Amino acid sequence: MRMYDLIIKKRNGLSLTKEEIEFMVNGFTQGEIPDYQMSAMMMAVYFQGMDEEETLFLTLAMEHSGEVLDLSGIEGIKVDKHSTGGVGDKTSLALIPMTAACGLKVAKMSGRGLGHTGGTIDKLESFPGFTTEISTERFLKNVRENGISIMGQTKELAPADKKLYALRDVTATVDNMSLIASSIMSKKLAAGADAIVLDVKTGSGAFMKKEEDAFLLGQEMVKIGKNAGKETIAVISDMDQPLGAAVGNILEVKEAIATLNGEGPKDFETLCLTLGSHMLVAGKAAPDVQTAQEMLKETIQNKKALEKLAQFVRSQGGDDSYVYEPEKFPQASIFEAVPSPQDGYIKKIHCEEIGNCSLVLGGGRETKESNIDLTVGLVFQKKKGDYVKKGETIALIHGNDRKKTDTAKKRFLNAIAFSEQKPEETPLIKGIVKV
Amino acid sequence: MRMYDLIIKKRNGLSLTKEEIEFMVNGFTQGEIPDYQMSAMMMAVYFQGMDEEETLFLTLAMEHSGEVLDLSGIEGIKVDKHSTGGVGDKTSLALIPMTAACGLKVAKMSGRGLGHTGGTIDKLESFPGFTTEISTERFLKNVRENGISIMGQTKELAPADKKLYALRDVTATVDNMSLIASSIMSKKLAAGADAIVLDVKTGSGAFMKKEEDAFLLGQEMVKIGKNAGKETIAVISDMDQPLGAAVGNILEVKEAIATLNGEGPKDFETLCLTLGSHMLVAGKAAPDVQTAQEMLKETIQNKKALEKLAQFVRSQGGDDSYVYEPEKFPQASIFEAVPSPQDGYIKKIHCEEIGNCSLVLGGGRETKESNIDLTVGLVFQKKKGDYVKKGETIALIHGNDRKKTDTAKKRFLNAIAFSEQKPEETPLIKGIVKV
Repeated sequence: MRMYDLIIKKRNGLSLTKEEIEFMVNGFTQGEIPDYQMSAMMMAVYFQGMDEEETLFLTLAMEHSGEVLDLSGIEGIKVDKHSTGGVGDKTSLALIPMTAACGLKVAKMSGRGLGHTGGTIDKLESFPGFTTEISTERFLKNVRENGISIMGQTKELAPADKKLYALRDVTATVDNMSLIASSIMSKKLAAGADAIVLDVKTGSGAFMKKEEDAFLLGQEMVKIGKNAGKETIAVISDMDQPLGAAVGNILEVKEAIATLNGEGPKDFETLCLTLGSHMLVAGKAAPDVQTAQEMLKETIQNKKALEKLAQFVRSQGGDDSYVYEPEKFPQASIFEAVPSPQDGYIKKIHCEEIGNCSLVLGGGRETKESNIDLTVGLVFQKKKGDYVKKGETIALIHGNDRKKTDTAKKRFLNAIAFSEQKPEETPLIKGIVKV
Repeated sequence: MRMYDLIIKKRNGLSLTKEEIEFMVNGFTQGEIPDYQMSAMMMAVYFQGMDEEETLFLTLAMEHSGEVLDLSGIEGIKVDKHSTGGVGDKTSLALIPMTAACGLKVAKMSGRGLGHTGGTIDKLESFPGFTTEISTERFLKNVRENGISIMGQTKELAPADKKLYALRDVTATVDNMSLIASSIMSKKLAAGADAIVLDVKTGSGAFMKKEEDAFLLGQEMVKIGKNAGKETIAVISDMDQPLGAAVGNILEVKEAIATLNGEGPKDFETLCLTLGSHMLVAGKAAPDVQTAQEMLKETIQNKKALEKLAQFVRSQGGDDSYVYEPEKFPQASIFEAVPSPQDGYIKKIHCEEIGNCSLVLGGGRETKESNIDLTVGLVFQKKKGDYVKKGETIALIHGNDRKKTDTAKKRFLNAIAFSEQKPEETPLIKGIVKV
């Protein structure tokens, strides 16, 4: 088999077989197939596409390019959740304790990654002493006993995907649904869960700017999951403005805690209930979505979810007193209110630019080596559709550096558009994609 | 400017500017743009194409990536000739003396290349003492005084093309008319001539298997030539069977000499007259094609072309007595007749496979390091449309190795198809492409 012939085949619009795709992925991962052939292939895929079978074969080949987590030591149906990412997305922090409090087992292996804020692990490290550097034994024991554990990636999941994505990223071959879906799903499948609930975000703060693309991506991923024998559901949710009010690591942790106390932003709570209910049903912890939603609400009312978070934090060495006294978290040194420059309704919030404000303040990583400032960020007081008077505070910026804070404030204002008329409400949940 | 943005632009179907193409070609040649970006770009070009302007810019950028020959020291219009290559193509050996005998100035810089037989230089080296390792001064002096000189490539013409072609060759991005045309034309333009006559071959022994593709390629090249300010004409000629009767280095030299003696195969003579007449008109050595053909025929009848060949061989150190006594050339040791396995008309000759017979015998180069056996090859006694009886000789194989000769014989027979009915005659000249 020669990579050259596979490029021709795909270029001419034919489908690649399982063996051909495995040959390609393995050869590329092992450095036997050079980058220049793989990039030509990816461009051919961009133009000719991949069918459902090819997409599955690609996903499975990438899944098996590294370690595949074995969660069989944990009883029951393990459900994983994945978000395509957005601004103010602290969902896991509240959602996982809520579903665990309903009896679901959540075993997550996580990386840190780049972004406007840190990832879930960075946010959890706000709790003094909390660590994800735990042994696999302790990880599995914690899940069995408490229903939750998160372990830092000891070995790389789906290394083929990492190498291929890096190449696609510099050769303008990212934008293809099959390739995007197989990239996400290869890592999710390698993480070992039995069922997967996907949060596919759409809007100005999401990777999928257009709603129809988000649905297409959801469909691609659900098809892969189904074909791989894992129940998979995609929730398409709005990311045309930040999720909740807080953007920034500790600020988001506090918002998650507030949500578990029943005092969180409505949109964020709704998303947790929607995703959580599908997770419970997939994990057979609830008979249907309505019942599941009631069960999840109950975990907030009776504080079981809050207790679950505390137990989780404690079980990985963290100081759980912060769960009950979040005012103990360190704070930034500068608080800068952003006043509205005019009267009017907030018509649009350019969401990605709000993420960049957090990055400017030091809350995210631009390179793998960047240090994250956990205290900085911003908290919205008004969001899309709200009426503001000139001078009224739209958001409060938390910073530690005067210059960066000023830059963030300027960029924040440029990201807001006003209108005289009240803009139409956009639903948070755009739809659910199942097989 | 970033290569990434140029890939996106082309991928999305937009045209690249002159500056963008120059940035790309220069960056790639200097190693600043990596292979994996260039191969993704080439695949995008495969799908989106290049317009007439882009094709010109690409050609010019590649032309100027290395030395451009300055032939201004030679008076008059310098006309170059290029063949896209085929089996038994010894055209230059007869054509150049014929046109030079009519007063045209031909200054050629040549490489050796890979192929079923050697290139023009290899064939000329059959004359003992002949060398193309001459100084530029002697080269120009010979052209001025005799009308012909051929110099080995001292410096590389169009190195960008060489690098790009090598990449396209392994990434399935060769098959695009703009890219093929710009590759050929960049080298021709760098070779410094004022006018170019192209022999675009089509059929089973040619790069362009389909006649319509050959016309498209001819049109692309003629457009580039015109846009670069050089008169350019493409002759589309048949390569569905070998040209003439002889395939193999010395065998072809002898056939060229026979042709200059008026005893050559009809098809080969016709091609020389056709190409030569367009060269003479382009070089203003003849008022029109009809007159030019008469002039060329005259050089055969009065032996002026033969004398010109002798003068040329002599002027580059070769023993010109071989021109008049070609029986002096060394011969192979094995002569193996290929008898027809049946009665019937020769319906088809798989031309590329005949070329492979020459390669098998040792007459061509598989790698740059291969040594060529100048004596081996084969000579057709019957060609397409001829009637043969069972046992009658179709061709005579000249070999120096029993096993290789047997292999060649077997492959030769597999390349011939017979029919009961006389097949339709295919014209040698398919058409002329001019602006």
